[in-house]
Amino acid sequence: MKHAFPFSAIVGQDDMKLAMILTAVDPKLGGVLVFGDRGTGKSTAVRALAALLPPIQAVQGCPVNSADPADVPDWARLETHQMVERPTPVVDLPLGVTEDRVTGALDIERALTQGEKAFQPGLLAQANRGYLYIDEVNLLEDHIVDLLLDVAQSGENVVEREGLSIRHAARFVLVGSGNPEEGELRPQLLDRFGLSVEVRSPTDIDDRIEVIRRRDAFETDVETFMATWGVEDTKLRDHILTARAGLAGIETKTDALRDCAELCVALGSDGLRGELTLLRAGRAWAAFQGDTSLDRRHLRRVAPLALSHRLRRDPLDEAGSATRVARTVSEVLG
Amino acid sequence: MKHAFPFSAIVGQDDMKLAMILTAVDPKLGGVLVFGDRGTGKSTAVRALAALLPPIQAVQGCPVNSADPADVPDWARLETHQMVERPTPVVDLPLGVTEDRVTGALDIERALTQGEKAFQPGLLAQANRGYLYIDEVNLLEDHIVDLLLDVAQSGENVVEREGLSIRHAARFVLVGSGNPEEGELRPQLLDRFGLSVEVRSPTDIDDRIEVIRRRDAFETDVETFMATWGVEDTKLRDHILTARAGLAGIETKTDALRDCAELCVALGSDGLRGELTLLRAGRAWAAFQGDTSLDRRHLRRVAPLALSHRLRRDPLDEAGSATRVARTVSEVLG
Amino acid sequence: MKHAFPFSAIVGQDDMKLAMILTAVDPKLGGVLVFGDRGTGKSTAVRALAALLPPIQAVQGCPVNSADPADVPDWARLETHQMVERPTPVVDLPLGVTEDRVTGALDIERALTQGEKAFQPGLLAQANRGYLYIDEVNLLEDHIVDLLLDVAQSGENVVEREGLSIRHAARFVLVGSGNPEEGELRPQLLDRFGLSVEVRSPTDIDDRIEVIRRRDAFETDVETFMATWGVEDTKLRDHILTARAGLAGIETKTDALRDCAELCVALGSDGLRGELTLLRAGRAWAAFQGDTSLDRRHLRRVAPLALSHRLRRDPLDEAGSATRVARTVSEVLG
Amino acid sequence: MKHAFPFSAIVGQDDMKLAMILTAVDPKLGGVLVFGDRGTGKSTAVRALAALLPPIQAVQGCPVNSADPADVPDWARLETHQMVERPTPVVDLPLGVTEDRVTGALDIERALTQGEKAFQPGLLAQANRGYLYIDEVNLLEDHIVDLLLDVAQSGENVVEREGLSIRHAARFVLVGSGNPEEGELRPQLLDRFGLSVEVRSPTDIDDRIEVIRRRDAFETDVETFMATWGVEDTKLRDHILTARAGLAGIETKTDALRDCAELCVALGSDGLRGELTLLRAGRAWAAFQGDTSLDRRHLRRVAPLALSHRLRRDPLDEAGSATRVARTVSEVLG
Amino acid sequence: MKHAFPFSAIVGQDDMKLAMILTAVDPKLGGVLVFGDRGTGKSTAVRALAALLPPIQAVQGCPVNSADPADVPDWARLETHQMVERPTPVVDLPLGVTEDRVTGALDIERALTQGEKAFQPGLLAQANRGYLYIDEVNLLEDHIVDLLLDVAQSGENVVEREGLSIRHAARFVLVGSGNPEEGELRPQLLDRFGLSVEVRSPTDIDDRIEVIRRRDAFETDVETFMATWGVEDTKLRDHILTARAGLAGIETKTDALRDCAELCVALGSDGLRGELTLLRAGRAWAAFQGDTSLDRRHLRRVAPLALSHRLRRDPLDEAGSATRVARTVSEVLG
Amino acid sequence: MKHAFPFSAIVGQDDMKLAMILTAVDPKLGGVLVFGDRGTGKSTAVRALAALLPPIQAVQGCPVNSADPADVPDWARLETHQMVERPTPVVDLPLGVTEDRVTGALDIERALTQGEKAFQPGLLAQANRGYLYIDEVNLLEDHIVDLLLDVAQSGENVVEREGLSIRHAARFVLVGSGNPEEGELRPQLLDRFGLSVEVRSPTDIDDRIEVIRRRDAFETDVETFMATWGVEDTKLRDHILTARAGLAGIETKTDALRDCAELCVALGSDGLRGELTLLRAGRAWAAFQGDTSLDRRHLRRVAPLALSHRLRRDPLDEAGSATRVARTVSEVLG
Repeated sequence: MKHAFPFSAIVGQDDMKLAMILTAVDPKLGGVLVFGDRGTGKSTAVRALAALLPPIQAVQGCPVNSADPADVPDWARLETHQMVERPTPVVDLPLGVTEDRVTGALDIERALTQGEKAFQPGLLAQANRGYLYIDEVNLLEDHIVDLLLDVAQSGENVVEREGLSIRHAARFVLVGSGNPEEGELRPQLLDRFGLSVEVRSPTDIDDRIEVIRRRDAFETDVETFMATWGVEDTKLRDHILTARAGLAGIETKTDALRDCAELCVALGSDGLRGELTLLRAGRAWAAFQGDTSLDRRHLRRVAPLALSHRLRRDPLDEAGSATRVARTVSEVLG
Repeated sequence: MKHAFPFSAIVGQDDMKLAMILTAVDPKLGGVLVFGDRGTGKSTAVRALAALLPPIQAVQGCPVNSADPADVPDWARLETHQMVERPTPVVDLPLGVTEDRVTGALDIERALTQGEKAFQPGLLAQANRGYLYIDEVNLLEDHIVDLLLDVAQSGENVVEREGLSIRHAARFVLVGSGNPEEGELRPQLLDRFGLSVEVRSPTDIDDRIEVIRRRDAFETDVETFMATWGVEDTKLRDHILTARAGLAGIETKTDALRDCAELCVALGSDGLRGELTLLRAGRAWAAFQGDTSLDRRHLRRVAPLALSHRLRRDPLDEAGSATRVARTVSEVLG
Repeated sequence: MKHAFPFSAIVGQDDMKLAMILTAVDPKLGGVLVFGDRGTGKSTAVRALAALLPPIQAVQGCPVNSADPADVPDWARLETHQMVERPTPVVDLPLGVTEDRVTGALDIERALTQGEKAFQPGLLAQANRGYLYIDEVNLLEDHIVDLLLDVAQSGENVVEREGLSIRHAARFVLVGSGNPEEGELRPQLLDRFGLSVEVRSPTDIDDRIEVIRRRDAFETDVETFMATWGVEDTKLRDHILTARAGLAGIETKTDALRDCAELCVALGSDGLRGELTLLRAGRAWAAFQGDTSLDRRHLRRVAPLALSHRLRRDPLDEAGSATRVARTVSEVLG
Repeated sequence: MKHAFPFSAIVGQDDMKLAMILTAVDPKLGGVLVFGDRGTGKSTAVRALAALLPPIQAVQGCPVNSADPADVPDWARLETHQMVERPTPVVDLPLGVTEDRVTGALDIERALTQGEKAFQPGLLAQANRGYLYIDEVNLLEDHIVDLLLDVAQSGENVVEREGLSIRHAARFVLVGSGNPEEGELRPQLLDRFGLSVEVRSPTDIDDRIEVIRRRDAFETDVETFMATWGVEDTKLRDHILTARAGLAGIETKTDALRDCAELCVALGSDGLRGELTLLRAGRAWAAFQGDTSLDRRHLRRVAPLALSHRLRRDPLDEAGSATRVARTVSEVLG
Repeated sequence: MKHAFPFSAIVGQDDMKLAMILTAVDPKLGGVLVFGDRGTGKSTAVRALAALLPPIQAVQGCPVNSADPADVPDWARLETHQMVERPTPVVDLPLGVTEDRVTGALDIERALTQGEKAFQPGLLAQANRGYLYIDEVNLLEDHIVDLLLDVAQSGENVVEREGLSIRHAARFVLVGSGNPEEGELRPQLLDRFGLSVEVRSPTDIDDRIEVIRRRDAFETDVETFMATWGVEDTKLRDHILTARAGLAGIETKTDALRDCAELCVALGSDGLRGELTLLRAGRAWAAFQGDTSLDRRHLRRVAPLALSHRLRRDPLDEAGSATRVARTVSEVLG
Repeated sequence: MKHAFPFSAIVGQDDMKLAMILTAVDPKLGGVLVFGDRGTGKSTAVRALAALLPPIQAVQGCPVNSADPADVPDWARLETHQMVERPTPVVDLPLGVTEDRVTGALDIERALTQGEKAFQPGLLAQANRGYLYIDEVNLLEDHIVDLLLDVAQSGENVVEREGLSIRHAARFVLVGSGNPEEGELRPQLLDRFGLSVEVRSPTDIDDRIEVIRRRDAFETDVETFMATWGVEDTKLRDHILTARAGLAGIETKTDALRDCAELCVALGSDGLRGELTLLRAGRAWAAFQGDTSLDRRHLRRVAPLALSHRLRRDPLDEAGSATRVARTVSEVLG
């Protein structure tokens, strides 16, 4: 069995780690887009997150990982409904994937002949209650990205072919990585991701040495390495579970709403998804911090993650988008 | 069951709401094209309208939602014709839809073998007596847009394959949304939509706060939210039904016709569809206002909706088309 | 049953109406090309013409509308040959039509197995003895336009596949509409249409009011409207039938031939199709006028229709082609 | 039955008529390429030539028109070999023709199952001993043009599929028409046509009147017209047959060879096909003139036909290629 | 049987030979990319390496060359598990190869019908425990290169089709050759190759004579030539086996890690794959040299191989990448 | 039966004839590329060479022309192995040929069903021990050219499909013709042809007269012409057979190797294929001359053939490549 690199052993990359933790606290945040050059450990981080996440309870053999026997779809044809524990699903979208493979395929022929819905579930079914990872999302065809974002938003996958219709739950966090040098996402699509972060290689020599040392240790003696870092990963997992429990109780005052709106107007971000995501991300961070009310400190921390990818290009302002967000945050929120 | 956001709870966006109400009063107005940036709530509004509209009486199981058992097509092979109440159909055109899926598919093989017309109805059948919604209509292939506009105009879907021919009623309101940044529609197609509106994110902070507050309330406690706003939606629905009943009695004097013609000539809009739509939209608005005769007040209100998308580009006039329409309306109609 | 807008109720558009009437008097004139902006009523006019034309006598069930039982093709497999009256066929070429759908399809498989010619007639068969209408002919693929023009010229459709060969009469008038803003026809194809006209929206306010008033009356109370205008349409139909009867008796003197030739040389139109069409169109107009000999008055009236689309571009002459024809007509014919 | 316009009734166009007559005298001349604007009667001329040519003696039912029962191919499966008279075949290459339709199709399936060569002959078989006409040769795909030229040169059509091989005689004259405005042939292909001519509309008014008069007479009373011109066509046919008989006896002196070579060098025509075609065309013309030896008069007449399409472009010489040939002919041959 | 040219008989090309030897010592180094003009012996060298490598022990008939009977996949359906010695596999990727041919094809039909996994292994199976060679990698489609790099990195080939899943070991060294004149690899892909070298034709006359002499001798009397050079190849093979045995014992001090990191920062290479590859390549070279600890001498030698293809383009620095690496190595490591 | 034009009767074109003779003496020279304008007799020359070459002894019915019954492949299923004499095979690659037709097709279906390798040999099988001619090689798809060059070099055709594998000898001389005006070969491919020559039409009048005279005589009275020139062809064939016998005995001194290397370095030809081909071509020429040792005279004669197509473009040197080779030859070899 192959081990994933431990999440806690990742050196630096605080924003990326924060974004991933926030989606673990509130999976409805709308996914994460990770921008960065090659070799910055984007896919390593996603695999590490997968290994970190708490397991789920699911009906054995259920193709959509249902938590409740009542939710097992007919077409699964399960005869018994025993509960088992599974790792949080993390599904990897292969480059060049077809739409059928994503949504599942409805076998019309068989449906007509045998009078039953013959459905071959796809990656969206596998990803239910977990994560769906797209490496180099900017290389994927637009109509697939669209489809993924639609389902991620509605939480339901509907497959219709010639009058037949199948639907199943498909609630997952979409994580996309992209190298901005290799083609851009349409702003229309960008806006539909909840959070975004940018990752870079560390420039500090000691950080780099530490990165190499840990990778080399991991490759040389994986068992010892896992034993050491597993303790940290377990602590973090417990922390996430506590935050999940506290999330519903976070109080939101009108001042916080006004802060969100003023920040977005000052930044000129299009539409209203920015405000809503900022609000939710702030509450998730408050819960992770153990706080009970959303305030400016929380918004300050998560604003760059929630808003950087929603700015219009400003040809007169050469600063990067994260910088522009930070500057505006300090002007508006003090 | 998932709830749609209530139509009445949409903050601002008066033109868009007006256009949608007008199509509910007179479905023959020729559809609505909604332009706007991402995140401005275009698709939320369409779904809200769907939930607002009064239900229809239809034959149970009829694939084209016939109001009269005599209109049920042969190929439906219904044995009984019991009437039921259904929500007004709202059909969503998926990106990348095929022509067969839109028009329905005629199974030649089976038709020849079994001597019967084997027709698999498509989205046009489902949309009869309701709405057909196309998100990002500018991304759809031209020949599909053409086909949709042809059927929307004729009210009939004709499918012909190798000498066989199927036809069924397909009367629906076409609603298309488009982001002007992502490609333009050919003027030829633009002109065939009845009304157009432009939507933008609110710039007023309090409006924005109100938007976020309502969305957040909707997502947090949907039942309470629906109970509150359902009352408003019901009032609006009744208002629409009253207007429908009054529409046929609206008087149209020659002066109103002259106003329509002079306005279009002054604007230099091509063709005559502008005048005809302006006339009808004016009458629908008069009916919604409870008036019995079409006058300049009605034309003033609906002219931007009926004419903005029919102007030729004027390279010397940098004003947007809605502004040009408003300016000309006040010059011509006072 | 849906009514077509009456031909006589079309306001203005004299050239277009003239061209259509000429093809009704002499169907061998070689078709009409109608240029014009959107919304100028091109397709309304074609449908109106269809409703105006006198019915034909044809063998019942004959796929090519044969006037004589002896002309019914074998592959039609009619057992009885009863004569019936049918409306003049008007066939609409759908956008994106396939070559098989146009020409008809020869089923090789069945032909070989069952020893009989299995032919599924196409749109060319339906159009025999009538009209074939192509909306936006400039958007059709060149090879289909070519094929249509070849058949229109020869009056015969020949389908050959792997040594099998089917031929049937296909005499029809080709009517194409095109918007010059959306792509041009190759001069090679232009030249093969007999007549061309340009249509524009009326600019006179009273004309426009009249257009709207008639359209609105037609849409509001179609029965009354048809009763009113049906009388005019009947008169025009009778007039056309009289003209058809007189056509063969029109005398053509050498002076008229010389006028045709000098006009074409003065205009620099390529080839000789211009002269021949001018000659025939002049004679059809003379017959419609009740005259018995072709003279300069007739040529003057029809020259713009027969020649405008055959001019070479003259970069030093900015006048439109109709203007250039008119100027040259008055120079040459006085 | 439809009549072709009589060859003798074509007004003017001497070069085109000469080129066609030369190929009738010596079919090995290598085909004719006819350049010209639309409406100049190119396809009329080819059909006229077809009707003019003397009939051939052929085995009844033979798919390659064999003159000798011994040459009937096996795959034709003829049981009797009766001789019949047929018109000289003239085959029209449809636009968009497939390679299989041109060469014939070998049915591998049937060949393997039934142990016999199942060959469906194509247009090349039909054209044997006759003419193959390509309208707008510049619009045909290069690989089809290549194939046609290869077969025209070798006189044999070889079809090979998966180890099976069919060959049959395919000796024909290739006639191609092209409009230089619609795309050029590659020089590689140009060079492989034997002769070329350019046709233009007549500019003389009386010629044009004569053209219109004859076309109009032909269309109005075809029987009388054919009776009149049939006499001329018969004389021309007899003249061609006499020339064919005399061709083999034409003497060719070294001086004539030297004239050919010097002319080609002076013109800078590539390769040696020019000289060889000039030589053959000269001899065919000598035979048609009733002469017994090839001399400069013959070469002068045919040089423009044999050489115009073989010149390299000379950017400093703006004269057309026919003019350049004529000038060089008078310099070299006096 | 054809002989490969002996690896030891290759004249010069020290970097290329070193890179290949390093991958033989540590196959996890991540492949080699060989840049060079045509005719520089790239493919000869790969074939030579194949012949040089020590044979492997594998289960007879096992499609993935398993070293242990327990690792033979089910779908191989081997009944007996006898061990045999095989040459190290070297698989050549044909130009235009399909994805199925690379990954193996899963026969869904048969899997469903016969209830067993029907897998046709591909080139990745053949290459397990050996080398996979891609000539002109820059001409291969990106998605295939991506797939190869993914598998090369994970050491496992996973084939999924419609819910069925096959996985097998696929540990191989990827060797790609490319001519930079014929298209570049995306930097994203470049970075994923472990080592890169550039080869050129020798410019020294005596070297060239020696090359020709050896090739000529090889082609003229191959047996004698192989006998002579086989001795050298055997020595080298033994040397490699010794180095493999010593690799795990090489000590790595923090100073060496710091050297790696400082070198990469100074060079501005993106990501961290550079450092890790440099570290591993240094240790492989130390082992080949018979040393027991990694020091600067080793890093100096292998740095150009590990880092040249990871530099960003520097428009102000016209030196080639190998030169830039060498310069920085001497600045940083002295 | 059709006669090929006799090789000896070709006027001039010494380099092309020499290159072809050299490949007849040493078929391993690596093929010939013939550049030249249209009409220069390239394909005539290849057919002439085919007719000139000595016949081979082969097993009757063997699809790869095996010289030895032991070499007949299994899949040929020959029952008897009688030796027969055949003409040297010359295979013509048709334009647009498929890869299956070139390599042969493996019938997987039949192989699986009937347990036997069902292989339909292709053109490579037919060409074994002979010539493969590609007209207009620059118009062939790159992947086919690549494949042909690979097989020509390895002497073996390997066809692999889904785990099945067929291999057979495919030793042939590749002759390609190309018109440089119609697209260039990639340098990568150019370099893999052994020899290249350029042909032009003769410019001398007497030569041209002689060419025309011979072609005309050949076409007019082929039997007499063949009788005359057959004697010359037979002498040349005997001369080639003698040279083949002497080839192995040609001595090669180091000075000759040095001459080869210095010449290539001076010319800056890439890679080492140039030297090796020069060496082999020199020896073949020495053998044809009846000499026993390779010296500068031989290298001087063949250098332009072996090296002209291997030069890099030199933008400062406008001389053609043959001229540059000749100049360098006289500088280096005196």
